[in-house]
Amino acid sequence: MPDTVESIKKYVRAANYLSAAQIYLGDNFLLKRKLSFNDIKPRLLGHWGTCPGINFIYANLNYLIKKHRADILFIMGPGHGFAALQANLFLEGTLEKYYPEAARDEKGVGYVVKNFCWPYGFPSHSNPGAPGVILEGGELGYALSTAYGAVLDNPDLIAACVIGDGEAETGPLAAAWHLNKLISPAGSGAVLPILHLNGYKISGPTIFGRMTNRELKALFTGYGYEPIVVEGVNVYQKMIDAFEKSYQIIKERSGRFPMIILKTLKGWTGIKNLKGVKMEGNFASHQVPAPNAKTDKAELKAVEKWLCSYKFEELFSAEGRFVDEIKELIPESNLKMGENKHAFGADKKSLVLPPAEQFSEDAALPGTIGSSSMRRIGAYLNEVFKLNKENKNLRLFSPDETYSNKLDAVFETTSRAFAMPQKEWDKDLSPDGRVMELLSEHSLQGMAQGYVLTGRHAIFASYEAFIQIVASMADQYAKFLKTAKEFPWRGDIPSFNYILTSSGWRQEHNGFSHQNPGFISGMLQKPGDFVRVFFPPDGNSALVVLKECLASKNKINIIVAGKTLEPRWLTPELATEELNDGMMIWDFASEEDPHIVFAAAGDYLTKESLAAVGIVKSEAPEIKVRFVNVMELSVLGKSADFAKYFTADKPVIFNFHGYPQTLKQFLFDYEKNENFCVHGYIENGSTTTPFDMQVRNETSRYHLAIEAFAKMAERGFLETGKAENLIKKYKQKLSEHREYIKINGVDPEEIENWQWKSFK
Amino acid sequence: MPDTVESIKKYVRAANYLSAAQIYLGDNFLLKRKLSFNDIKPRLLGHWGTCPGINFIYANLNYLIKKHRADILFIMGPGHGFAALQANLFLEGTLEKYYPEAARDEKGVGYVVKNFCWPYGFPSHSNPGAPGVILEGGELGYALSTAYGAVLDNPDLIAACVIGDGEAETGPLAAAWHLNKLISPAGSGAVLPILHLNGYKISGPTIFGRMTNRELKALFTGYGYEPIVVEGVNVYQKMIDAFEKSYQIIKERSGRFPMIILKTLKGWTGIKNLKGVKMEGNFASHQVPAPNAKTDKAELKAVEKWLCSYKFEELFSAEGRFVDEIKELIPESNLKMGENKHAFGADKKSLVLPPAEQFSEDAALPGTIGSSSMRRIGAYLNEVFKLNKENKNLRLFSPDETYSNKLDAVFETTSRAFAMPQKEWDKDLSPDGRVMELLSEHSLQGMAQGYVLTGRHAIFASYEAFIQIVASMADQYAKFLKTAKEFPWRGDIPSFNYILTSSGWRQEHNGFSHQNPGFISGMLQKPGDFVRVFFPPDGNSALVVLKECLASKNKINIIVAGKTLEPRWLTPELATEELNDGMMIWDFASEEDPHIVFAAAGDYLTKESLAAVGIVKSEAPEIKVRFVNVMELSVLGKSADFAKYFTADKPVIFNFHGYPQTLKQFLFDYEKNENFCVHGYIENGSTTTPFDMQVRNETSRYHLAIEAFAKMAERGFLETGKAENLIKKYKQKLSEHREYIKINGVDPEEIENWQWKSFK
Repeated sequence: MPDTVESIKKYVRAANYLSAAQIYLGDNFLLKRKLSFNDIKPRLLGHWGTCPGINFIYANLNYLIKKHRADILFIMGPGHGFAALQANLFLEGTLEKYYPEAARDEKGVGYVVKNFCWPYGFPSHSNPGAPGVILEGGELGYALSTAYGAVLDNPDLIAACVIGDGEAETGPLAAAWHLNKLISPAGSGAVLPILHLNGYKISGPTIFGRMTNRELKALFTGYGYEPIVVEGVNVYQKMIDAFEKSYQIIKERSGRFPMIILKTLKGWTGIKNLKGVKMEGNFASHQVPAPNAKTDKAELKAVEKWLCSYKFEELFSAEGRFVDEIKELIPESNLKMGENKHAFGADKKSLVLPPAEQFSEDAALPGTIGSSSMRRIGAYLNEVFKLNKENKNLRLFSPDETYSNKLDAVFETTSRAFAMPQKEWDKDLSPDGRVMELLSEHSLQGMAQGYVLTGRHAIFASYEAFIQIVASMADQYAKFLKTAKEFPWRGDIPSFNYILTSSGWRQEHNGFSHQNPGFISGMLQKPGDFVRVFFPPDGNSALVVLKECLASKNKINIIVAGKTLEPRWLTPELATEELNDGMMIWDFASEEDPHIVFAAAGDYLTKESLAAVGIVKSEAPEIKVRFVNVMELSVLGKSADFAKYFTADKPVIFNFHGYPQTLKQFLFDYEKNENFCVHGYIENGSTTTPFDMQVRNETSRYHLAIEAFAKMAERGFLETGKAENLIKKYKQKLSEHREYIKINGVDPEEIENWQWKSFK
Repeated sequence: MPDTVESIKKYVRAANYLSAAQIYLGDNFLLKRKLSFNDIKPRLLGHWGTCPGINFIYANLNYLIKKHRADILFIMGPGHGFAALQANLFLEGTLEKYYPEAARDEKGVGYVVKNFCWPYGFPSHSNPGAPGVILEGGELGYALSTAYGAVLDNPDLIAACVIGDGEAETGPLAAAWHLNKLISPAGSGAVLPILHLNGYKISGPTIFGRMTNRELKALFTGYGYEPIVVEGVNVYQKMIDAFEKSYQIIKERSGRFPMIILKTLKGWTGIKNLKGVKMEGNFASHQVPAPNAKTDKAELKAVEKWLCSYKFEELFSAEGRFVDEIKELIPESNLKMGENKHAFGADKKSLVLPPAEQFSEDAALPGTIGSSSMRRIGAYLNEVFKLNKENKNLRLFSPDETYSNKLDAVFETTSRAFAMPQKEWDKDLSPDGRVMELLSEHSLQGMAQGYVLTGRHAIFASYEAFIQIVASMADQYAKFLKTAKEFPWRGDIPSFNYILTSSGWRQEHNGFSHQNPGFISGMLQKPGDFVRVFFPPDGNSALVVLKECLASKNKINIIVAGKTLEPRWLTPELATEELNDGMMIWDFASEEDPHIVFAAAGDYLTKESLAAVGIVKSEAPEIKVRFVNVMELSVLGKSADFAKYFTADKPVIFNFHGYPQTLKQFLFDYEKNENFCVHGYIENGSTTTPFDMQVRNETSRYHLAIEAFAKMAERGFLETGKAENLIKKYKQKLSEHREYIKINGVDPEEIENWQWKSFK
């Protein structure tokens, strides 16, 4: 037993040396000569404070893996402690596999140390270029939910998840502790959270660091875990024991799953004091403890003393090999945490997908009522769940909204994951359900990321307004994905699929807070072609789009579609055609050589546009119109063929699902953009009627028609007097509508039951 | 004692009746005749499930107020239970004060009931039109942090905060429980959280509803509270006792503050069963329990039986008055929760502000090195804290970044709020500190909102990238503010001030995850003039902008500025001039009748633009240039005077702090926008050098100069051969830079120490 402790101590010493060396050394990597200013990097970056704890945990996990041949994925919350992770990946030889210069010899040490935080070298934070990594950890809060996502449907996997006491203060992390209540111990693996309390953040103490052990134990018992505190003397032996105990509980599925509270000093084994300031065990060692080591003699000396204290020369011989005790701690290749197959999505299986036609509806006559895009999607997804039952590689994530979003057809085949006690009147709950519902968008996004980055397929369905809650997480995921594509050895990653429904246009009942199309605005600012936003105008096109998304790789797909009963416009064939081009001239509502173009993106906006076309044609048949539907917004930024759709010189009245500005940022790059009048959500809302939402935001058929009459008179395609009368008539209609709904509480029937009538 | 229980029961019966009536009744409001289909509203909206619990809590709080003359602010997390709040506001007569038609007589009952969820009537959710409300509650998660913000510096105030078990699952809420650790019991009031567990969300059970009492108690003990469970028989008496006990602990500041776990049935007192489905005590009563009451006889009957069960006629007489027991429960005017003065920001005091000049630096010679905008802001804020010490009406909120953001000058006058045990080496911590640090942006945003909406002044300083974490909260706050302005009786609300620093351009060390200018993109999509984004180009202008922001009302101000040492460009006088117009032609870098315009918004981008001007003028003095600095972006969307700044026809090379698209959406509305070339953050980043961040994103001086040479040749202002050579030269410089930093790890000195040289 003491041998084990001694081996682990040696491993940790080596890892600590390598971590600190990465921060400081630009040369003299093995300290073969006295340290000089010249040896110090010109710019000192990195975060030392958390590194020794990470090394300590990693070493102990290696021991556990060796002992039990355990399948462990390492999820590191404090991504800024990357020097430590890098040290371990180097020590275990994983780094060498993907970066041949990182060989475990003298030159390799120099390569790894020198290139840390070096331009075009290795970044300062955990990143997709590091094998085994599925979490960047730069923005804190997502470690635990990611870990829970990784273990879903991987019954043999343990995700060892390090959570810093800074990260523990965040909301997303605080919510994720409850995810244990959604996990079936039979069908999924286990998360082993290691709350690493070194007590300090960047400039002060942490909340968790100052809580008593009694409070900590109460808190995590309350969260449903078996907390094990590791601290104080004999901490090495205690950690071995804590991991062993945890492993046994997890493997035997006996009782509540454990979590470990590890208390070690911030910057443990680093500089104790510097110029009268307490360093070890204080926030002062958070980043670079001796930031002036390149110019200040005292600091240089302190760094030298510190680095020498590890006696790296005892651990690593001139021949470039680590001593046996260290080598023996390193698991065999396929068990190394840096090579955990799940992080590479090893057994990625594509989804078996039924044809969209299987669930399509008759749309031979455009405008036939009615179709609910979400009902179509629900039926399709139910079949996908059925076809992929054996593969267990699809999950639907939703904050308690599967029913509300009309996707409940999936409950014919699966149910909602729920591992808590049930009542007889409960519905659609079971421990092995494949629908993950929790009223925490953060937890769902994190879990879905963990699921996707381990090679499985995820759909996140949400009220459109509240997906904005995870805007920042999605930004970070987009960064991860963009970077991951630079490393071909990571392989393809299944696409992350969002379904945004219950959109603001039909949240007339829940009101203003439920009306927010901001998420797509942010996502559409990502350069490149990996973010795609789709606006299927009806149920059939929703099916076609969904199939395309589920089959795609390496994308972030966002489908924006309603759940209410709306007209059918496209057959599956036409929908496919439009999807291929991203947009389409709809023949049934278009004439040759039009005087004006109506365009729309979004189902409800398409309906209003077509209603406006109807008004224009019935009032002024002499105006020749065209209608263009845009199904994928990102193509607007790419299409060289604008004039083919929008004409070179005619007015275009564009009705857009989101903020007008979101469309304008695309149109800016198009030369003829002065012809476009853009309508969209201008942040006017309340509890009102569906049509009044359109009226308030000036996207209503009446607004569009009024604008068309004005433009046509301006261009000489409509007699001025007639135009004036028509404009007056439809302005009158707008005020009549307001009076009508004040009295009746609902829209007039002519609006509610509007149907497309062919003018051809 | 039984009398009290009976009184409260009567009050709750009346409130429950009024809540349910609002959901269903369009007529026959007092059930004077048999209920018919015609009496039912054409559209049934609202959320019944949570209402009875809210009524129960509100009634008990009224009793507590009456007994102790307690100062209680009601914060209602489940905003969708608005029918209940409205019932109470009506009962207590607050509604009548602001809506005279809501008199407490027969007509008033009809008015309130009919107008709930009626177009242009009352919304379905809690909202700024409801007196006493400072939280909308449509997007869940922010109740507790808002409550904590409200009690800061209000030592006599108790914020009674209702948290639904849905909301309790969210991350922001889960983190906010820890805010008790930042509150000084001496200088601030108390939050009394009431976790209302009715056990169900919209379509299934909640996590908290299925936890054992042991787990619940452990969890909240761990969070640092004294949990009191109220449930089961005699729940009325138990609630009276729980509130009494809580009040005593709070008033005596004796020990850990209490929180109440209230367990009542979902839809308590509503329909028990409908068509074989369990309603009361099940998710089925979440919204409208009998949704077809207007057309289905059985449902209508069930509603009638339910409404009659309250025997409202015993509680409310034909003369339009409530029975004495109910009246006696209603606090006197200034103690009514709907009239709590804090919700109206009663003692709003403006901040005493020093002149910006007091902290300005000499900038007579443009380009003088150096100035840190954050250091300037820190010094200024320190003085503001000093000047407003007695008023106790300013707080700085920051996720552990006051030091890192170089704002630590404020610690000369104040410190960080921390009510946990301290160590001897701790710095700048004290229970009455006015800087709120917690690594939870959600908690800070919520606290700041609570602070501002109770009439005080808040600054939220953050790394720019991570403010995106609260994008959705800020969206919701903007909605609240926009709506609040429609109700003049709410008065002015101090502006919400963001300082975004440590921006991506200088997160070259922390890398890609720390580079995200997305927050301003979203905020700039809000129509109207209440969101303002400022890009002060240097320290002096940062001071001028900050003063303007702190003095303003009813705005959301966002200041984007760096912390590093950068050139000084403007005297305070010039900065003020530029602030007034939003943008300015900088004379020292501009010539008459320019051939080309350089423009910039953002300090680092301004520096690159001016460096490009320097290159252009030194290489091709024949090109006449102009430089325009944009300090407030929102003015771009307003200015009719574009040509004055940007010329009518010359190329404009615009270097923008954020995503280029964010600027393009403004420029779209400008007729001559085809002259603009927009540069900005195009999502290219890593750990690299500061200048390489500019190079990767094509915002570098070299990129701008190359583009200028090309444009000038195109327009005939530069000889083609010369242009080709210059372009070649600066492309060469770009590749040389990359090679240089790979070898040296830092930017060459000519870049690092660049200084503006006058060409005039």
